[in-house]
Amino acid sequence: MTEDHMTDGFATRVAKAVAVTGPLCAGIDPSADLLADWGLPDSAVGLRTFGLTCVEAFTEVVPVVKPQVAFFERLGSDGLAALEDVLAACRDAGLLAIADAKRGDIGSTMEAYAAAWLDPTSPLAADAMTVTPYVGLGALQPAFDLAAASGRGVIVVTRSSNPEGRALQTAATAAGPSVEDQLLADIAALNDGGLAVAGTVGVVIGATLEPSAFDLADLGGVILAPGVGVQGGTAQDVGRLFGACAPGTVLPSASRSLLAAGPDVGALREAAMAERERLRATLG
Amino acid sequence: MTEDHMTDGFATRVAKAVAVTGPLCAGIDPSADLLADWGLPDSAVGLRTFGLTCVEAFTEVVPVVKPQVAFFERLGSDGLAALEDVLAACRDAGLLAIADAKRGDIGSTMEAYAAAWLDPTSPLAADAMTVTPYVGLGALQPAFDLAAASGRGVIVVTRSSNPEGRALQTAATAAGPSVEDQLLADIAALNDGGLAVAGTVGVVIGATLEPSAFDLADLGGVILAPGVGVQGGTAQDVGRLFGACAPGTVLPSASRSLLAAGPDVGALREAAMAERERLRATLG
Repeated sequence: MTEDHMTDGFATRVAKAVAVTGPLCAGIDPSADLLADWGLPDSAVGLRTFGLTCVEAFTEVVPVVKPQVAFFERLGSDGLAALEDVLAACRDAGLLAIADAKRGDIGSTMEAYAAAWLDPTSPLAADAMTVTPYVGLGALQPAFDLAAASGRGVIVVTRSSNPEGRALQTAATAAGPSVEDQLLADIAALNDGGLAVAGTVGVVIGATLEPSAFDLADLGGVILAPGVGVQGGTAQDVGRLFGACAPGTVLPSASRSLLAAGPDVGALREAAMAERERLRATLG
Repeated sequence: MTEDHMTDGFATRVAKAVAVTGPLCAGIDPSADLLADWGLPDSAVGLRTFGLTCVEAFTEVVPVVKPQVAFFERLGSDGLAALEDVLAACRDAGLLAIADAKRGDIGSTMEAYAAAWLDPTSPLAADAMTVTPYVGLGALQPAFDLAAASGRGVIVVTRSSNPEGRALQTAATAAGPSVEDQLLADIAALNDGGLAVAGTVGVVIGATLEPSAFDLADLGGVILAPGVGVQGGTAQDVGRLFGACAPGTVLPSASRSLLAAGPDVGALREAAMAERERLRATLG
Protein backbone atom coordinates (compact mmCIF):
# COMPACT_ATOMS: atom_id res chain seq x y z
CA MET A 1 0.00 0.00 0.00
CA THR A 2 2.87 2.38 0.72
CA GLU A 3 4.00 2.12 -2.89
CA ASP A 4 0.62 3.00 -4.41
CA HIS A 5 0.58 6.65 -3.50
CA MET A 6 2.79 7.70 -6.34
CA THR A 7 0.09 6.57 -8.74
CA ASP A 8 -3.24 6.42 -6.87
CA GLY A 9 -4.96 9.42 -5.38
CA PHE A 10 -6.02 9.47 -1.73
CA ALA A 11 -9.65 8.44 -2.37
CA THR A 12 -8.53 5.46 -4.42
CA ARG A 13 -6.10 4.37 -1.73
CA VAL A 14 -8.83 4.58 0.90
CA ALA A 15 -11.32 2.66 -1.25
CA LYS A 16 -8.80 -0.13 -1.83
CA ALA A 17 -8.08 -0.40 1.89
CA VAL A 18 -11.79 -0.37 2.80
CA ALA A 19 -12.41 -3.16 0.30
CA VAL A 20 -9.95 -5.32 2.25
CA THR A 21 -10.98 -4.60 5.83
CA GLY A 22 -14.30 -2.77 5.84
CA PRO A 23 -15.17 0.86 6.65
CA LEU A 24 -13.83 2.15 9.96
CA CYS A 25 -11.33 4.82 10.93
CA ALA A 26 -9.88 4.10 14.36
CA GLY A 27 -8.89 7.13 16.39
CA ILE A 28 -5.59 7.22 18.26
CA ASP A 29 -6.47 9.60 21.10
CA PRO A 30 -3.99 9.45 23.97
CA SER A 31 -5.72 11.90 26.28
CA ALA A 32 -4.46 12.23 29.85
CA ASP A 33 -7.50 10.24 30.99
CA LEU A 34 -6.87 7.35 28.60
CA LEU A 35 -3.16 7.22 29.38
CA ALA A 36 -4.12 6.81 33.04
CA ASP A 37 -6.75 4.17 32.18
CA TRP A 38 -4.11 2.22 30.27
CA GLY A 39 -1.64 2.48 33.17
CA LEU A 40 0.76 4.60 31.12
CA PRO A 41 2.76 7.64 32.28
CA ASP A 42 1.60 11.11 31.22
CA SER A 43 4.76 11.61 29.18
CA ALA A 44 6.16 11.20 25.69
CA VAL A 45 6.98 7.59 26.61
CA GLY A 46 3.32 7.02 27.45
CA LEU A 47 2.17 8.66 24.19
CA ARG A 48 4.57 6.52 22.15
CA THR A 49 3.53 3.27 23.82
CA PHE A 50 -0.15 4.15 23.44
CA GLY A 51 0.23 4.96 19.75
CA LEU A 52 2.36 1.94 18.88
CA THR A 53 -0.09 -0.33 20.71
CA CYS A 54 -2.89 1.07 18.57
CA VAL A 55 -0.90 0.54 15.37
CA GLU A 56 -0.20 -3.06 16.35
CA ALA A 57 -3.86 -3.70 17.21
CA PHE A 58 -5.42 -2.00 14.20
CA THR A 59 -3.07 -3.11 11.38
CA GLU A 60 -4.97 -5.31 8.89
CA VAL A 61 -8.10 -4.81 11.01
CA VAL A 62 -9.10 -1.30 9.93
CA PRO A 63 -8.16 0.58 6.75
CA VAL A 64 -7.27 3.90 8.38
CA VAL A 65 -6.17 5.27 11.74
CA LYS A 66 -6.49 8.87 12.86
CA PRO A 67 -3.98 10.12 15.43
CA GLN A 68 -5.35 13.20 17.20
CA VAL A 69 -2.48 15.68 17.01
CA ALA A 70 -3.67 17.76 19.98
CA PHE A 71 -3.01 14.96 22.45
CA PHE A 72 0.61 14.70 21.28
CA GLU A 73 1.13 18.46 21.01
CA ARG A 74 -0.04 18.83 24.62
CA LEU A 75 3.41 17.56 25.65
CA GLY A 76 5.31 19.85 23.29
CA SER A 77 8.17 18.80 21.03
CA ASP A 78 8.66 15.53 22.94
CA GLY A 79 5.02 14.68 22.30
CA LEU A 80 5.39 15.49 18.63
CA ALA A 81 8.47 13.23 18.45
CA ALA A 82 6.30 10.40 19.78
CA LEU A 83 3.77 11.13 17.03
CA GLU A 84 6.56 10.95 14.44
CA ASP A 85 7.33 7.43 15.66
CA VAL A 86 3.65 6.45 15.52
CA LEU A 87 3.32 7.77 11.97
CA ALA A 88 6.49 5.92 10.95
CA ALA A 89 5.01 2.72 12.39
CA CYS A 90 1.87 3.27 10.30
CA ARG A 91 3.96 3.67 7.15
CA ASP A 92 5.92 0.51 7.96
CA ALA A 93 2.69 -1.42 8.59
CA GLY A 94 0.98 -0.18 5.41
CA LEU A 95 -1.74 1.34 7.59
CA LEU A 96 -3.18 4.61 6.23
CA ALA A 97 -2.94 7.51 8.68
CA ILE A 98 -4.97 10.72 8.79
CA ALA A 99 -3.28 13.37 10.94
CA ASP A 100 -6.20 15.00 12.73
CA ALA A 101 -4.54 18.40 12.91
CA LYS A 102 -7.39 20.79 12.01
CA ARG A 103 -4.90 23.34 10.70
CA GLY A 104 -6.12 26.32 8.71
CA ASP A 105 -4.20 29.40 7.61
CA ILE A 106 -3.30 31.42 4.53
CA GLY A 107 -0.52 31.78 1.99
CA SER A 108 2.98 30.72 2.93
CA THR A 109 1.74 29.71 6.38
CA MET A 110 -0.72 27.18 4.97
CA GLU A 111 2.06 26.00 2.69
CA ALA A 112 4.24 25.33 5.75
CA TYR A 113 1.48 23.33 7.48
CA ALA A 114 0.99 21.30 4.31
CA ALA A 115 4.73 20.62 4.13
CA ALA A 116 4.71 19.44 7.76
CA TRP A 117 1.96 16.85 7.28
CA LEU A 118 1.92 15.98 3.57
CA ASP A 119 5.47 16.27 2.26
CA PRO A 120 6.77 12.68 1.94
CA THR A 121 10.15 13.76 3.37
CA SER A 122 8.68 15.29 6.55
CA PRO A 123 9.06 13.33 9.81
CA LEU A 124 5.33 14.02 10.37
CA ALA A 125 4.26 12.80 6.91
CA ALA A 126 0.77 11.27 6.98
CA ASP A 127 -1.54 10.08 4.21
CA ALA A 128 -3.93 12.95 4.84
CA MET A 129 -4.46 15.86 7.20
CA THR A 130 -7.62 17.52 8.47
CA VAL A 131 -8.05 21.28 8.00
CA THR A 132 -10.60 23.93 9.00
CA PRO A 133 -11.93 26.43 6.45
CA TYR A 134 -12.66 29.62 8.44
CA VAL A 135 -10.18 31.57 6.28
CA GLY A 136 -11.87 30.28 3.12
CA LEU A 137 -11.49 27.15 1.04
CA GLY A 138 -9.36 29.02 -1.50
CA ALA A 139 -6.76 29.80 1.17
CA LEU A 140 -6.19 26.07 1.63
CA GLN A 141 -5.07 25.61 -1.99
CA PRO A 142 -1.36 25.05 -1.11
CA ALA A 143 -2.42 21.96 0.85
CA PHE A 144 -4.64 20.70 -1.97
CA ASP A 145 -1.81 21.13 -4.48
CA LEU A 146 0.79 19.36 -2.36
CA ALA A 147 -1.65 16.55 -1.56
CA ALA A 148 -2.49 16.02 -5.23
CA ALA A 149 1.19 15.99 -6.15
CA SER A 150 2.02 13.33 -3.56
CA GLY A 151 -1.03 11.04 -3.70
CA ARG A 152 -2.19 12.33 -0.35
CA GLY A 153 -5.42 13.88 0.90
CA VAL A 154 -6.80 16.94 2.66
CA ILE A 155 -9.96 16.54 4.71
CA VAL A 156 -11.93 19.74 5.30
CA VAL A 157 -14.17 20.10 8.36
CA THR A 158 -17.56 21.07 6.93
CA ARG A 159 -20.08 19.86 9.54
CA SER A 160 -18.55 19.21 12.92
CA SER A 161 -20.26 16.77 15.27
CA ASN A 162 -20.74 19.35 18.06
CA PRO A 163 -23.80 21.59 18.50
CA GLU A 164 -21.79 24.82 18.99
CA GLY A 165 -20.79 24.81 15.32
CA ARG A 166 -24.26 24.82 13.78
CA ALA A 167 -24.93 28.59 13.77
CA LEU A 168 -21.79 29.32 11.74
CA GLN A 169 -21.96 26.26 9.51
CA THR A 170 -25.62 26.89 8.57
CA ALA A 171 -25.21 30.65 7.97
CA ALA A 172 -26.37 31.75 4.51
CA THR A 173 -23.70 32.92 2.07
CA ALA A 174 -24.46 35.79 -0.30
CA ALA A 175 -24.54 33.22 -3.12
CA GLY A 176 -27.45 31.43 -1.42
CA PRO A 177 -26.31 28.09 0.02
CA SER A 178 -25.32 27.64 3.63
CA VAL A 179 -21.64 27.84 4.51
CA GLU A 180 -21.39 24.05 4.71
CA ASP A 181 -23.34 23.35 1.53
CA GLN A 182 -21.25 25.89 -0.40
CA LEU A 183 -18.09 24.21 0.88
CA LEU A 184 -19.40 20.79 -0.18
CA ALA A 185 -20.20 22.08 -3.67
CA ASP A 186 -16.82 23.77 -4.01
CA ILE A 187 -15.03 20.62 -2.83
CA ALA A 188 -17.01 18.49 -5.29
CA ALA A 189 -15.78 20.83 -8.05
CA LEU A 190 -12.18 20.41 -6.87
CA ASN A 191 -12.61 16.64 -7.00
CA ASP A 192 -14.22 16.81 -10.44
CA GLY A 193 -11.41 18.27 -12.52
CA GLY A 194 -10.36 21.12 -10.25
CA LEU A 195 -7.15 19.42 -9.15
CA ALA A 196 -4.53 17.22 -10.81
CA VAL A 197 -5.86 14.13 -8.99
CA ALA A 198 -9.56 13.34 -8.45
CA GLY A 199 -10.58 12.54 -4.90
CA THR A 200 -7.82 14.55 -3.24
CA VAL A 201 -10.18 16.56 -1.03
CA GLY A 202 -12.38 14.90 1.57
CA VAL A 203 -14.72 16.27 4.24
CA VAL A 204 -15.51 15.81 7.90
CA ILE A 205 -19.24 15.39 8.52
CA GLY A 206 -20.40 14.42 11.99
CA ALA A 207 -22.26 11.10 12.04
CA THR A 208 -24.72 12.47 14.57
CA LEU A 209 -26.41 15.09 12.39
CA GLU A 210 -29.26 15.42 9.93
CA PRO A 211 -28.77 15.12 6.14
CA SER A 212 -27.71 18.29 4.32
CA ALA A 213 -29.12 19.83 1.15
CA PHE A 214 -26.02 18.86 -0.80
CA ASP A 215 -26.16 15.30 -2.13
CA LEU A 216 -23.14 13.65 -0.56
CA ALA A 217 -23.06 10.99 -3.26
CA ASP A 218 -21.75 13.74 -5.57
CA LEU A 219 -18.77 14.72 -3.41
CA GLY A 220 -16.14 12.66 -5.20
CA GLY A 221 -13.97 12.45 -2.09
CA VAL A 222 -13.64 10.67 1.22
CA ILE A 223 -16.18 11.40 3.95
CA LEU A 224 -14.76 11.14 7.45
CA ALA A 225 -17.63 10.77 9.90
CA PRO A 226 -16.69 11.17 13.55
CA GLY A 227 -19.18 10.63 16.35
CA VAL A 228 -19.75 6.88 16.13
CA GLY A 229 -19.91 5.37 19.61
CA VAL A 230 -19.51 7.64 22.60
CA GLN A 231 -20.64 10.79 20.80
CA GLY A 232 -24.00 9.16 20.08
CA GLY A 233 -23.80 8.20 16.41
CA THR A 234 -24.89 4.65 15.59
CA ALA A 235 -24.37 2.38 12.60
CA GLN A 236 -27.99 3.22 11.73
CA ASP A 237 -27.23 6.95 11.68
CA VAL A 238 -24.34 6.23 9.37
CA GLY A 239 -26.56 4.26 7.03
CA ARG A 240 -29.22 6.99 6.98
CA LEU A 241 -26.72 9.79 6.26
CA PHE A 242 -24.30 8.05 3.92
CA GLY A 243 -26.06 4.98 2.53
CA ALA A 244 -26.23 6.49 -0.96
CA CYS A 245 -22.49 7.16 -1.13
CA ALA A 246 -20.24 4.84 -3.13
CA PRO A 247 -18.66 1.97 -1.15
CA GLY A 248 -15.21 2.86 0.08
CA THR A 249 -15.86 6.59 0.27
CA VAL A 250 -17.27 6.76 3.80
CA LEU A 251 -15.03 6.36 6.84
CA PRO A 252 -16.99 6.40 10.08
CA SER A 253 -14.58 7.19 12.87
CA ALA A 254 -14.65 5.83 16.40
CA SER A 255 -12.19 6.62 19.15
CA ARG A 256 -13.17 6.36 22.81
CA SER A 257 -15.57 3.46 22.26
CA LEU A 258 -12.70 1.41 20.80
CA LEU A 259 -9.89 2.68 22.99
CA ALA A 260 -11.82 1.82 26.17
CA ALA A 261 -10.96 -1.82 25.30
CA GLY A 262 -7.22 -1.16 25.69
CA PRO A 263 -4.43 -1.55 26.55
CA ASP A 264 -4.80 -5.24 25.62
CA VAL A 265 -3.98 -5.60 21.91
CA GLY A 266 -6.35 -8.52 21.41
CA ALA A 267 -9.24 -6.71 23.08
CA LEU A 268 -8.59 -3.56 21.01
CA ARG A 269 -8.57 -5.65 17.86
CA GLU A 270 -11.83 -7.37 18.78
CA ALA A 271 -13.53 -4.05 19.54
CA ALA A 272 -12.44 -2.66 16.17
CA MET A 273 -13.57 -5.79 14.30
CA ALA A 274 -17.00 -5.71 15.95
CA GLU A 275 -17.52 -2.03 15.10
CA ARG A 276 -16.22 -2.55 11.58
CA GLU A 277 -18.69 -5.37 10.94
CA ARG A 278 -21.62 -3.30 12.25
CA LEU A 279 -20.63 -0.54 9.83
CA ARG A 280 -20.01 -2.91 6.94
CA ALA A 281 -23.56 -4.24 7.34
CA THR A 282 -24.90 -0.69 7.06
CA LEU A 283 -22.69 0.76 4.33
CA GLY A 284 -22.55 -2.35 2.16
CA MET B 1 6.25 41.77 33.39
CA THR B 2 6.52 38.00 33.79
CA GLU B 3 5.22 38.28 37.36
CA ASP B 4 2.11 40.25 36.47
CA HIS B 5 0.16 37.50 34.82
CA MET B 6 -1.04 35.99 38.04
CA THR B 7 -2.99 39.17 38.79
CA ASP B 8 -3.52 41.02 35.50
CA GLY B 9 -5.55 39.69 32.63
CA PHE B 10 -4.12 39.47 29.13
CA ALA B 11 -5.60 42.76 27.89
CA THR B 12 -4.18 44.62 30.87
CA ARG B 13 -0.76 43.11 30.35
CA VAL B 14 -0.82 44.14 26.68
CA ALA B 15 -1.99 47.67 27.49
CA LYS B 16 0.81 48.11 30.03
CA ALA B 17 3.40 46.92 27.51
CA VAL B 18 2.02 49.13 24.74
CA ALA B 19 2.18 52.13 27.08
CA VAL B 20 5.92 51.55 27.39
CA THR B 21 6.92 50.85 23.80
CA GLY B 22 4.04 51.75 21.50
CA PRO B 23 1.63 49.57 19.50
CA LEU B 24 3.29 46.97 17.29
CA CYS B 25 3.29 43.19 17.23
CA ALA B 26 6.41 41.89 15.47
CA GLY B 27 5.99 38.60 13.64
CA ILE B 28 8.64 35.89 13.96
CA ASP B 29 8.17 34.11 10.64
CA PRO B 30 11.11 31.87 9.74
CA SER B 31 9.89 30.73 6.35
CA ALA B 32 12.28 28.80 4.13
CA ASP B 33 12.70 31.95 2.02
CA LEU B 34 13.61 34.15 4.97
CA LEU B 35 16.00 31.57 6.42
CA ALA B 36 17.80 31.63 3.08
CA ASP B 37 17.76 35.45 2.97
CA TRP B 38 19.34 35.54 6.40
CA GLY B 39 22.01 33.01 5.40
CA LEU B 40 20.67 30.41 7.83
CA PRO B 41 20.33 26.66 7.26
CA ASP B 42 16.85 25.22 6.63
CA SER B 43 16.97 23.27 9.87
CA ALA B 44 16.03 23.48 13.53
CA VAL B 45 19.34 25.26 14.13
CA GLY B 46 18.35 27.88 11.57
CA LEU B 47 14.89 28.28 13.14
CA ARG B 48 16.37 28.69 16.61
CA THR B 49 18.95 31.28 15.51
CA PHE B 50 16.29 33.20 13.57
CA GLY B 51 13.90 33.25 16.53
CA LEU B 52 16.51 34.18 19.12
CA THR B 53 17.81 36.98 16.88
CA CYS B 54 14.26 38.36 16.70
CA VAL B 55 13.85 38.20 20.48
CA GLU B 56 17.15 40.05 20.97
CA ALA B 57 16.20 42.71 18.43
CA PHE B 58 12.62 43.27 19.55
CA THR B 59 12.98 43.19 23.36
CA GLU B 60 12.12 46.60 24.85
CA VAL B 61 11.38 47.80 21.30
CA VAL B 62 7.94 46.28 20.75
CA PRO B 63 5.43 45.09 23.35
CA VAL B 64 4.57 41.77 21.73
CA VAL B 65 6.05 39.25 19.32
CA LYS B 66 4.12 36.64 17.37
CA PRO B 67 5.97 33.47 16.40
CA GLN B 68 4.21 31.77 13.48
CA VAL B 69 3.91 28.16 14.61
CA ALA B 70 3.57 26.75 11.08
CA PHE B 71 7.13 27.70 10.17
CA PHE B 72 8.49 25.77 13.15
CA GLU B 73 6.08 22.83 12.73
CA ARG B 74 7.25 22.47 9.12
CA LEU B 75 10.39 20.81 10.50
CA GLY B 76 8.53 18.50 12.87
CA SER B 77 9.42 17.89 16.51
CA ASP B 78 12.90 19.42 16.04
CA GLY B 79 11.27 22.59 14.75
CA LEU B 80 8.90 22.68 17.70
CA ALA B 81 11.84 22.27 20.09
CA ALA B 82 13.38 25.39 18.51
CA LEU B 83 10.10 27.23 19.14
CA GLU B 84 10.21 26.12 22.78
CA ASP B 85 13.60 27.80 23.10
CA VAL B 86 12.31 30.97 21.42
CA LEU B 87 9.30 31.12 23.75
CA ALA B 88 11.57 30.56 26.77
CA ALA B 89 13.74 33.46 25.59
CA CYS B 90 10.63 35.66 25.39
CA ARG B 91 9.69 34.76 28.96
CA ASP B 92 13.23 35.50 30.17
CA ALA B 93 13.21 38.84 28.37
CA GLY B 94 9.78 39.88 29.64
CA LEU B 95 8.60 40.09 26.03
CA LEU B 96 4.96 39.08 25.53
CA ALA B 97 4.50 36.26 22.99
CA ILE B 98 1.41 35.32 21.00
CA ALA B 99 1.70 31.80 19.57
CA ASP B 100 0.13 32.16 16.14
CA ALA B 101 -1.19 28.60 16.08
CA LYS B 102 -4.71 29.02 14.63
CA ARG B 103 -5.87 25.89 16.44
CA GLY B 104 -9.56 25.06 16.63
CA ASP B 105 -11.24 21.88 17.82
CA ILE B 106 -13.84 20.63 20.29
CA GLY B 107 -14.09 19.15 23.75
CA SER B 108 -11.10 17.33 25.19
CA THR B 109 -9.15 18.03 22.00
CA MET B 110 -9.48 21.79 22.39
CA GLU B 111 -8.55 21.34 26.02
CA ALA B 112 -5.32 19.62 24.94
CA TYR B 113 -4.43 22.44 22.53
CA ALA B 114 -5.08 24.97 25.27
CA ALA B 115 -2.84 23.03 27.65
CA ALA B 116 -0.06 22.98 25.05
CA TRP B 117 0.02 26.76 24.54
CA LEU B 118 -1.47 28.30 27.68
CA ASP B 119 -0.61 26.05 30.62
CA PRO B 120 2.26 27.79 32.46
CA THR B 121 4.02 24.44 32.91
CA SER B 122 4.03 23.56 29.19
CA PRO B 123 7.32 23.91 27.29
CA LEU B 124 5.29 25.75 24.61
CA ALA B 125 3.63 28.17 27.07
CA ALA B 126 2.94 31.55 25.47
CA ASP B 127 1.04 34.60 26.71
CA ALA B 128 -1.71 34.00 24.19
CA MET B 129 -2.61 31.73 21.29
CA THR B 130 -4.61 32.34 18.13
CA VAL B 131 -7.59 30.09 17.36
CA THR B 132 -10.08 29.66 14.51
CA PRO B 133 -13.81 29.42 15.22
CA TYR B 134 -15.20 27.17 12.44
CA VAL B 135 -16.44 24.67 15.05
CA GLY B 136 -18.19 27.46 16.95
CA LEU B 137 -17.05 29.92 19.58
CA GLY B 138 -18.63 27.80 22.33
CA ALA B 139 -16.37 24.88 21.44
CA LEU B 140 -13.35 27.03 22.30
CA GLN B 141 -14.48 27.48 25.92
CA PRO B 142 -11.75 25.20 27.39
CA ALA B 143 -9.14 27.61 25.98
CA PHE B 144 -10.98 30.67 27.33
CA ASP B 145 -11.23 29.09 30.79
CA LEU B 146 -7.57 28.10 30.96
CA ALA B 147 -6.49 31.51 29.67
CA ALA B 148 -8.59 33.33 32.26
CA ALA B 149 -7.22 31.14 35.03
CA SER B 150 -3.61 31.83 34.07
CA GLY B 151 -3.71 35.51 33.06
CA ARG B 152 -3.29 34.57 29.43
CA GLY B 153 -5.27 35.28 26.27
CA VAL B 154 -7.01 33.61 23.35
CA ILE B 155 -7.22 35.51 20.08
CA VAL B 156 -10.00 34.42 17.74
CA VAL B 157 -9.70 34.90 13.98
CA THR B 158 -12.84 36.82 13.02
CA ARG B 159 -11.87 38.72 9.85
CA SER B 160 -8.81 37.35 8.17
CA SER B 161 -6.73 39.61 5.94
CA ASN B 162 -7.15 37.43 2.82
CA PRO B 163 -9.94 37.77 0.23
CA GLU B 164 -10.82 34.03 0.18
CA GLY B 165 -12.35 34.25 3.64
CA ARG B 166 -14.92 36.95 2.96
CA ALA B 167 -17.79 34.73 1.67
CA LEU B 168 -17.81 32.64 4.85
CA GLN B 169 -17.08 35.44 7.27
CA THR B 170 -19.86 37.66 5.86
CA ALA B 171 -22.49 34.88 5.63
CA ALA B 172 -25.71 35.70 7.49
CA THR B 173 -26.48 33.70 10.61
CA ALA B 174 -30.10 32.77 11.39
CA ALA B 175 -29.99 35.33 14.23
CA GLY B 176 -29.33 38.12 11.71
CA PRO B 177 -25.73 39.36 12.00
CA SER B 178 -22.94 38.15 9.78
CA VAL B 179 -20.73 35.34 11.05
CA GLU B 180 -17.97 37.80 11.96
CA ASP B 181 -20.24 40.37 13.59
CA GLN B 182 -21.93 37.65 15.66
CA LEU B 183 -18.52 36.43 16.80
CA LEU B 184 -17.49 39.96 17.75
CA ALA B 185 -20.68 40.44 19.78
CA ASP B 186 -20.28 37.07 21.50
CA ILE B 187 -16.64 37.83 22.31
CA ALA B 188 -17.59 41.26 23.71
CA ALA B 189 -20.05 39.46 26.02
CA LEU B 190 -17.30 37.07 27.16
CA ASN B 191 -15.08 40.05 27.95
CA ASP B 192 -17.91 41.84 29.77
CA GLY B 193 -18.59 39.43 32.62
CA GLY B 194 -18.71 36.16 30.69
CA LEU B 195 -15.36 34.97 32.01
CA ALA B 196 -13.50 35.20 35.29
CA VAL B 197 -11.10 37.82 33.87
CA ALA B 198 -12.16 40.70 31.59
CA GLY B 199 -10.18 41.09 28.39
CA THR B 200 -9.21 37.44 28.09
CA VAL B 201 -10.50 37.04 24.53
CA GLY B 202 -9.08 39.02 21.64
CA VAL B 203 -9.70 38.97 17.90
CA VAL B 204 -7.79 38.93 14.66
CA ILE B 205 -9.05 41.56 12.21
CA GLY B 206 -7.08 42.17 9.04
CA ALA B 207 -5.79 45.73 8.77
CA THR B 208 -6.53 45.79 5.07
CA LEU B 209 -10.33 45.59 5.25
CA GLU B 210 -13.34 47.85 5.57
CA PRO B 211 -14.99 48.66 8.93
CA SER B 212 -17.59 46.18 10.18
CA ALA B 213 -21.06 46.80 11.58
CA PHE B 214 -19.91 45.88 15.07
CA ASP B 215 -18.33 48.81 16.93
CA LEU B 216 -14.85 47.59 17.74
CA ALA B 217 -14.54 50.08 20.59
CA ASP B 218 -16.98 47.82 22.47
CA LEU B 219 -14.93 44.63 22.16
CA GLY B 220 -13.21 44.77 25.53
CA GLY B 221 -10.29 42.69 24.29
CA VAL B 222 -7.12 42.93 22.26
CA ILE B 223 -7.38 43.46 18.51
CA LEU B 224 -4.55 41.85 16.58
CA ALA B 225 -4.41 43.42 13.12
CA PRO B 226 -2.18 41.63 10.64
CA GLY B 227 -1.55 42.96 7.19
CA VAL B 228 0.54 46.03 7.94
CA GLY B 229 3.38 46.37 5.46
CA VAL B 230 3.71 43.75 2.74
CA GLN B 231 0.03 42.74 2.80
CA GLY B 232 -0.96 46.30 1.92
CA GLY B 233 -2.23 47.76 5.18
CA THR B 234 -0.85 51.18 6.09
CA ALA B 235 -0.74 53.14 9.32
CA GLN B 236 -3.57 55.20 7.81
CA ASP B 237 -5.71 52.05 7.35
CA VAL B 238 -5.05 51.19 10.97
CA GLY B 239 -6.16 54.64 12.10
CA ARG B 240 -9.33 54.48 9.99
CA LEU B 241 -10.33 51.02 11.28
CA PHE B 242 -9.25 51.21 14.89
CA GLY B 243 -8.84 54.89 15.78
CA ALA B 244 -11.87 54.81 18.10
CA CYS B 245 -10.53 51.88 20.14
CA ALA B 246 -8.96 52.53 23.53
CA PRO B 247 -5.17 53.02 23.54
CA GLY B 248 -3.33 49.79 24.23
CA THR B 249 -6.04 47.54 22.82
CA VAL B 250 -4.93 47.49 19.18
CA LEU B 251 -1.86 45.53 18.08
CA PRO B 252 -1.10 46.03 14.40
CA SER B 253 1.14 43.19 13.32
CA ALA B 254 3.97 43.36 10.80
CA SER B 255 6.20 40.50 9.77
CA ARG B 256 7.88 40.44 6.39
CA SER B 257 8.29 44.22 6.20
CA LEU B 258 10.31 44.12 9.43
CA LEU B 259 12.10 40.81 8.92
CA ALA B 260 13.45 41.93 5.54
CA ALA B 261 15.81 44.13 7.58
CA GLY B 262 17.50 41.07 9.17
CA PRO B 263 19.62 39.31 10.11
CA ASP B 264 21.39 42.36 11.56
CA VAL B 265 19.99 42.98 15.05
CA GLY B 266 20.46 46.74 14.86
CA ALA B 267 18.72 46.98 11.50
CA LEU B 268 15.82 44.84 12.74
CA ARG B 269 15.48 47.04 15.79
CA GLU B 270 15.47 50.21 13.68
CA ALA B 271 12.84 48.82 11.32
CA ALA B 272 10.60 47.93 14.27
CA MET B 273 11.09 51.33 15.92
CA ALA B 274 10.22 53.15 12.70
CA GLU B 275 7.03 51.11 12.18
CA ARG B 276 6.09 51.47 15.84
CA GLU B 277 6.36 55.27 15.67
CA ARG B 278 4.25 55.43 12.50
CA LEU B 279 1.57 53.41 14.31
CA ARG B 280 1.86 55.39 17.55
CA ALA B 281 1.18 58.57 15.59
CA THR B 282 -2.00 57.03 14.20
CA LEU B 283 -3.37 55.22 17.24
CA GLY B 284 -2.42 57.86 19.80
